[in-house]
Amino acid sequence: MTEQAPSSLSHTAAASGDAPRPFSDRHLGPRAHEIGTMLAAVGASSLDELATRAVPANIQSGERLDLPAALSEEEALQALRDLAAKNTVRTQLIGQGYYETVTPAVLRRNVLENPAWYTAYTPYQPEISQGRLEALLNFQTAVQDLTGLDIANASLLDEATAVAEAVLLMRRANKKGHRIVLDRDLHPQTIAVVRVRAKAMDFQVEVADLTEGLVGEDIFGIVIQQPGSSGAVQDYAAAIAAAKERGALVTIATDLLALTLMKDPGSQGADIAVGSAQRFGVPLFFGGPHAGFIAVREKLQRMLPGRLVGVSKDADGRPAYRLALQTREQHIRREKATSNICTAQALLAVVASMYAVYHGPVGLRRIASRVHRLAVAFADALTADGDTGLDVVHESFFDTVLLRAADESAADAALTAAEEAGLNLRRVDGTHLGVSFGEPHGPATVNALLAALGAGERIDEGAFASASSGTFGQAQLPAPRFSPDLHRSTDFLTHPVFSAHGSETSMMRYLRTLADRDLALDRTMIPLGSCTMKLNAAAEMEAISWPEFASIHPFAPAHQTAGWRELIEDLEARLVTVTGYDRVSLQPNAGSQGELAGLLAIRGYHLSRGEAQRTVCLIPQSAHGTNAASAVLAGLKVVVVATAEDGSIDLDDLDAKIAQHAEQLAGIMITYPSTHGVYESDVRRVCQSVHDAGGQVYVDGANLNALVGLAKPGEFGGDVSHLNLHKTFCIPHGGGGPGVGPVAVREHLAPFLPGDPLDPALVSGEEDAVDLPVSASLYGSAGVLPISWAYLAMMGPEVVESTKTALLGANYIAARLNDSFPVLYSGEGGLVAHECILDLREVTRKTGVTAEDVAKRLIDYGFHAPTLAFPVAGTLMVEPTESEDLAELDRFIEAMRAIRAEIDQVAAGDFSLEDSPLRNAPHTAASVMADDWDKPYPRSQAAFPVPGLYQTKYFPPVRRIDGAYGDRNLVCSCPPPEAFETPAPAAETTETAAPAGVS
Amino acid sequence: MTEQAPSSLSHTAAASGDAPRPFSDRHLGPRAHEIGTMLAAVGASSLDELATRAVPANIQSGERLDLPAALSEEEALQALRDLAAKNTVRTQLIGQGYYETVTPAVLRRNVLENPAWYTAYTPYQPEISQGRLEALLNFQTAVQDLTGLDIANASLLDEATAVAEAVLLMRRANKKGHRIVLDRDLHPQTIAVVRVRAKAMDFQVEVADLTEGLVGEDIFGIVIQQPGSSGAVQDYAAAIAAAKERGALVTIATDLLALTLMKDPGSQGADIAVGSAQRFGVPLFFGGPHAGFIAVREKLQRMLPGRLVGVSKDADGRPAYRLALQTREQHIRREKATSNICTAQALLAVVASMYAVYHGPVGLRRIASRVHRLAVAFADALTADGDTGLDVVHESFFDTVLLRAADESAADAALTAAEEAGLNLRRVDGTHLGVSFGEPHGPATVNALLAALGAGERIDEGAFASASSGTFGQAQLPAPRFSPDLHRSTDFLTHPVFSAHGSETSMMRYLRTLADRDLALDRTMIPLGSCTMKLNAAAEMEAISWPEFASIHPFAPAHQTAGWRELIEDLEARLVTVTGYDRVSLQPNAGSQGELAGLLAIRGYHLSRGEAQRTVCLIPQSAHGTNAASAVLAGLKVVVVATAEDGSIDLDDLDAKIAQHAEQLAGIMITYPSTHGVYESDVRRVCQSVHDAGGQVYVDGANLNALVGLAKPGEFGGDVSHLNLHKTFCIPHGGGGPGVGPVAVREHLAPFLPGDPLDPALVSGEEDAVDLPVSASLYGSAGVLPISWAYLAMMGPEVVESTKTALLGANYIAARLNDSFPVLYSGEGGLVAHECILDLREVTRKTGVTAEDVAKRLIDYGFHAPTLAFPVAGTLMVEPTESEDLAELDRFIEAMRAIRAEIDQVAAGDFSLEDSPLRNAPHTAASVMADDWDKPYPRSQAAFPVPGLYQTKYFPPVRRIDGAYGDRNLVCSCPPPEAFETPAPAAETTETAAPAGVS
Repeated sequence: MTEQAPSSLSHTAAASGDAPRPFSDRHLGPRAHEIGTMLAAVGASSLDELATRAVPANIQSGERLDLPAALSEEEALQALRDLAAKNTVRTQLIGQGYYETVTPAVLRRNVLENPAWYTAYTPYQPEISQGRLEALLNFQTAVQDLTGLDIANASLLDEATAVAEAVLLMRRANKKGHRIVLDRDLHPQTIAVVRVRAKAMDFQVEVADLTEGLVGEDIFGIVIQQPGSSGAVQDYAAAIAAAKERGALVTIATDLLALTLMKDPGSQGADIAVGSAQRFGVPLFFGGPHAGFIAVREKLQRMLPGRLVGVSKDADGRPAYRLALQTREQHIRREKATSNICTAQALLAVVASMYAVYHGPVGLRRIASRVHRLAVAFADALTADGDTGLDVVHESFFDTVLLRAADESAADAALTAAEEAGLNLRRVDGTHLGVSFGEPHGPATVNALLAALGAGERIDEGAFASASSGTFGQAQLPAPRFSPDLHRSTDFLTHPVFSAHGSETSMMRYLRTLADRDLALDRTMIPLGSCTMKLNAAAEMEAISWPEFASIHPFAPAHQTAGWRELIEDLEARLVTVTGYDRVSLQPNAGSQGELAGLLAIRGYHLSRGEAQRTVCLIPQSAHGTNAASAVLAGLKVVVVATAEDGSIDLDDLDAKIAQHAEQLAGIMITYPSTHGVYESDVRRVCQSVHDAGGQVYVDGANLNALVGLAKPGEFGGDVSHLNLHKTFCIPHGGGGPGVGPVAVREHLAPFLPGDPLDPALVSGEEDAVDLPVSASLYGSAGVLPISWAYLAMMGPEVVESTKTALLGANYIAARLNDSFPVLYSGEGGLVAHECILDLREVTRKTGVTAEDVAKRLIDYGFHAPTLAFPVAGTLMVEPTESEDLAELDRFIEAMRAIRAEIDQVAAGDFSLEDSPLRNAPHTAASVMADDWDKPYPRSQAAFPVPGLYQTKYFPPVRRIDGAYGDRNLVCSCPPPEAFETPAPAAETTETAAPAGVS
Repeated sequence: MTEQAPSSLSHTAAASGDAPRPFSDRHLGPRAHEIGTMLAAVGASSLDELATRAVPANIQSGERLDLPAALSEEEALQALRDLAAKNTVRTQLIGQGYYETVTPAVLRRNVLENPAWYTAYTPYQPEISQGRLEALLNFQTAVQDLTGLDIANASLLDEATAVAEAVLLMRRANKKGHRIVLDRDLHPQTIAVVRVRAKAMDFQVEVADLTEGLVGEDIFGIVIQQPGSSGAVQDYAAAIAAAKERGALVTIATDLLALTLMKDPGSQGADIAVGSAQRFGVPLFFGGPHAGFIAVREKLQRMLPGRLVGVSKDADGRPAYRLALQTREQHIRREKATSNICTAQALLAVVASMYAVYHGPVGLRRIASRVHRLAVAFADALTADGDTGLDVVHESFFDTVLLRAADESAADAALTAAEEAGLNLRRVDGTHLGVSFGEPHGPATVNALLAALGAGERIDEGAFASASSGTFGQAQLPAPRFSPDLHRSTDFLTHPVFSAHGSETSMMRYLRTLADRDLALDRTMIPLGSCTMKLNAAAEMEAISWPEFASIHPFAPAHQTAGWRELIEDLEARLVTVTGYDRVSLQPNAGSQGELAGLLAIRGYHLSRGEAQRTVCLIPQSAHGTNAASAVLAGLKVVVVATAEDGSIDLDDLDAKIAQHAEQLAGIMITYPSTHGVYESDVRRVCQSVHDAGGQVYVDGANLNALVGLAKPGEFGGDVSHLNLHKTFCIPHGGGGPGVGPVAVREHLAPFLPGDPLDPALVSGEEDAVDLPVSASLYGSAGVLPISWAYLAMMGPEVVESTKTALLGANYIAARLNDSFPVLYSGEGGLVAHECILDLREVTRKTGVTAEDVAKRLIDYGFHAPTLAFPVAGTLMVEPTESEDLAELDRFIEAMRAIRAEIDQVAAGDFSLEDSPLRNAPHTAASVMADDWDKPYPRSQAAFPVPGLYQTKYFPPVRRIDGAYGDRNLVCSCPPPEAFETPAPAAETTETAAPAGVS
């Protein structure tokens, strides 16, 4: 129960690797004796032989990874404690998009520290995701209510990228202009990120003071920030009106807490609102992960980027949640995509949504009002004092007070004095300082700051307190200190869910109830091909909650963040060792951002060499859709390379395409092992051909779990890769984020890695700015990096055992299921890599049973489905990972074989496909217990098709969901409780339009 | 996500009580508007009026509690951090029953920090407790295997009390002698606790060196410790043989980790084995809570104290777990009881059991062997060095090396030098020091100690490490360094469960699977009368895991434990304020121990006044059985006082009994409010009468949740009370422990409070020893005290709102259910206290439907049953607590009314009782989905009797359990997996013998 062992002496146990049980023994699923059984089934004599046969000889690195020796769990935790101790925790008044907040203990314990929430996968299989879909729907509803707009998505990555997405959306929606105008009071990091995107996509950015109205034409949109980065709460009505007159769209970047007191963007005429939900209970995390948000007017809803939860109905006609408009998602649109966002910040959006549920509208207003009153009290006291040499710049503000010093040295002195008093302020520029208050601060914080700044004035702490006391929920709040025109007059969070769970008991049960509706890694393997759903060990997760990591502001002075930077540098170095590249940047806060950063590096490289014409990006047919979307966002043109019959890249077509585009060739994006789960033997040849033509090679690291310790993309031909720490390196998927997608490059691309979003040259738009940030803060989702650090520290060079064991698991499944469902592709040695594709197309042709039927039927067996219809329609792609033991693999094999027998029953005419347990799957408890049962198979077959289910059985809360219905009738906020009231009718098979192909 | 807010400045927010939302708003269930609705139903105008009417005027204290102002959650956590910082964490080599261990992170996160485990109640309702019953059965199996005995219980409180229980068991089982002989190498705290018990129960204790054989006759038993407290591993074969010859029983106190290498007690001839399972993954916790264990030979099984999990079968004939032999438990036996143990250390036993499951036999042996090798290496190096002036005393040991210094000052110097090097050693006596190694230590620990002791010798860390490396599970372990006669030769942990969950993934899922089988507070109210199942807030729970609290050895030097002692003193002071007594001791580690301590204080008081004849303890008929059992253990004679028709104490009978026993009257034990859930108006009169006769008044604090802030037992007549921190003060029930039962007394009893178990006078048996320890360590279950501290700190004087809200909830339920099930007792104002008894006897008479049927049927509605058949057979006692909101209370009321309607259906002949949904309850999913359904009610009524169940439905894993069958066929270890293999048969009602009345 101790978070760390008592002293460093206690932690020397395994200093020489002699822990009684190394961590690797816990991370790897199969026990020693099980490995023998599995090898026998695969026909290999040892793990090493298997790996040697599977991986092409010409790419095997053959060396033991030069990583530090493995630490025990206790040692790793102690090492993390030592790193944490090198950070300095201060009261963070810096603001600039990141504010101190209180994470309610009930949410910390029951969401952030609960594997039922953090190990869940993205809710593509909606029937087993109703709990987290409801949580995300609450998030959308809260954002919609607070912004006064019609529809919000289920989160974006951060505020800066949310603004960038809004800008791209306005550009898509509005073909009338080529300029975007940003108000000068946007956060500098926002301006920087938008500039990078604009440069890549070749449109013009202008930064102007929009409080003075809007000048010029040819404008497709404007972006306002309210409250401004300076803290000012200003009226932009004139600029908004001017934009509308010109047919330009309006985006307001805003703050959810301020909106509880401030007129909502919708009422002000905005078409889009964006921002960060961080201060709704999510720690600072040294910059992330936090949930960004975006909301739009109805007319723009089908252009909304990212994931969107919608309400549809299931086969029994009952309301059911699902991801809406998936056909619009990047993984469908491919080269036509205009956003590459696919990972959201689901786990953090859940926290923010539950923060809103817990506090409700009354609680949120009280928190906001108190924060505002602190800022007012501070400003008034400082002004009344008059002796500090610091002026309060603005009269209207929410939580942030902008101070002006007489000169730079006075500003320096004030900043230093505050820091010495334990208070971090923002250095806005030479003479300006910012002070931003947050939920945990109080009148004593104000007085400490006044004292530090040399003011004699103090506020009366008792009076401040008594003004905000009174029975909770009944006190009158004072009017905010900004223009009455900007006071909020509309209600929000009126849905009952926001007033039903105010007690901790009720909140705890609500979280459990939602979690119980879902299947996550804590109940079943999630054999998703290309997603690498491995163990997220508790010891890896612990450090992220420690205040010395979690409570650090991303813009805190460097001398306060030595521990963070050491951890990050060390993790980068380990990733360099693993990948064979020369440099790594951890900034990209999702795989998609890593891709973008990598492609921007390629583009920057060509530009630096005067080869601006190199804009063609080759992408194999089988690539993940995100590849193409990222290329488009990086300003590249996508050219598709055909796939040969055996699933590998068609070398003839490759040569032809290279020849065709010769001088225009920017590079190629390949995935290795391929998305077909195969080590292609020609990869060196592919890389060489592209290099010979002057192109760069991008190796998508999605499948790195099949390479670690066996081969290095930086050595066999890659110039750049992004990795997925949330796949290979144990960051949990969190129900769809956070993701972390670092980019790794060879030395020649290093100058083009993502840079500091606060680079002044970039913010001011200087042409020679070379920093190319893709995220609002330098280290992106820093907060979760201790997870990957811990994994590599505890595995050490033995991390290669993960790779080999993952290979064994996939090949074991392939060998044992091939009779039932043919394995589509394999490599030269007849082996698959870390995943395998089960081909159902013949089954579908003969019986009509689809891969989707099998996926849904697996739910009845208690499994999360494998990847459906990717990369090949009509197939299932299975990736067991190294963390699954033989018992779980065999349980899956048993289920798939039983399903195969059910397919044979369809073929034999025992029941029709339409009324088969396959098509009727999944079965809810209510449907199987219906008083009338008219199915041609017994209830026991519906619910308990194999005996083990009598021991442990999961029932989905809904039956198969009609996605098309939901898309035709788009509802993306919480439905009224009455919608759920009717008891489930007796189970009847309703014929529904087939859901979208990809789930 | 941060465990603490960043700095003290951040924590001044609510310094003046102005937190936007006080903690009380989260602890209390009903929202402001709900309270109005509830008051209306009860017919009261305000909470204050309700309390004033309910509580007799002559006991109302009328004053606001003089407690410090409430802190916010963040402030309370910061205050705890400040206290924690006053403790010093050192490498703990003290041993003496408490050893450093590594709590696997997966267990910390998924058991100790998971409300599904820690909020569960004692598994008296077995159908909703199969998960934790399995976990406890694993514990029993591990203890049985390792001790080589036939049957183990589900845990005791600590090692010293376990020895005391073993001694009492031997005394009960063996009428042949009056003396118990303890080996002199028992832990001193063990000897002290046994002496206190022996003195109270009037039998003789002798301490002797049993390695020299056994001398004398008239001996009912002997107790050996192996390894000894001194560390020596010695052969006691001669003494054991001599004991057998005399017909005496043999108990061996032992160490589970040592037993993986050492000959088991069963093979050595022991009848009983006891000890502590602490070092199986449970932190030191400054002394507790830890799971004690006891195992016995089959012939003694029906005398085994405490809880025992057994295997029985359910209504479908499938294996099912339950608490076995309940009819033998203290709450049945009453005044014939010979053990008062009822709380176990369930949560800690679960951790220990899962530690065994996780590591398995191979892992445990490796850990043990490594610990042993550290001790050997240290002893050898010190001996080889020869220059330190310290001699190694024993040649044979497991983990503990006893050192002899030349004189006291040399011992002092060595102790100090070690401490300065961060190493705590044990001061055994003037010239002896003890060094005990544990799992987290390594060769560097040995070398640091050698250096500190002035030895020039070092061990070769690399060589040590490589000797223990090798693929896990395959290395040969060296033979232990003690007599080959004492080497273990028998297998252990051969059941598959101990080798099925060695990977973290598998362990995580096993824990989730078990938790999902159960109902705990995180899914439903647990309206157990007299158990006060209120919120255990996450913020209250957090601090217990911090190393500065969790990693402190109970016998660490006082200057290292200042923070602990300050917290404990502060908590004692707050409890003094709440109860109106003058002094509190937090030593008793269960309510039963608190009772014993309180009664020992009364007994001590009378003895000190020369009134040894005062041995009669009056106990009302309605009292909890533990009361009587405790009185017997304290050497008192129980005389029962009758209950009047209205449920109150029969005053005439009281007067008669007082008169009858006059000079023999020791005192009375009453519960207030009474176990009938009523504030008896005569309580002052009762106390006065007893006082007038020279007796003392013991007020059982089980129902203190109805008094806090409204009345104080120390003011209205009590001389002594025990409290239940695990009821009123938020320590979670943990599935049946830890409990904490502090004893509170008025000043005249203060000299007789529990004292230091290391008091030398007591250990050596001096007649004038006045310390009366009831636990192995001074502060008992210190480790969980931060929970209660946090609760009182965060509620402050507003803790009275908990009391009033609890009254409101109980009266609301009484008012709304009285039509369906008459409320048996109420006070003068027509109000109940914090619980109410629903009388089913008339229903049973008319329809045959029993209270048990209702309790089991409630499971189908998703509820944990209220208290069944206590204190009145044929009734249900309901206590909602203040933490339940109106929605949950109404859900319960809806369920009870629906059940009432089903009873009416039985009455109307719609179906027979035998084939009613009531008697068939609970219904498993398998039974409702059976292909054949022959019940006279529809399946939908079986599973979904109210519509809300379609939203959230819990299915029990088994049907009603046949307790009597299990008792006739006692099986108390894990059944083979095959037992569960058969699919459930089609649901058929099997007529079974009615289970034992009390569940």
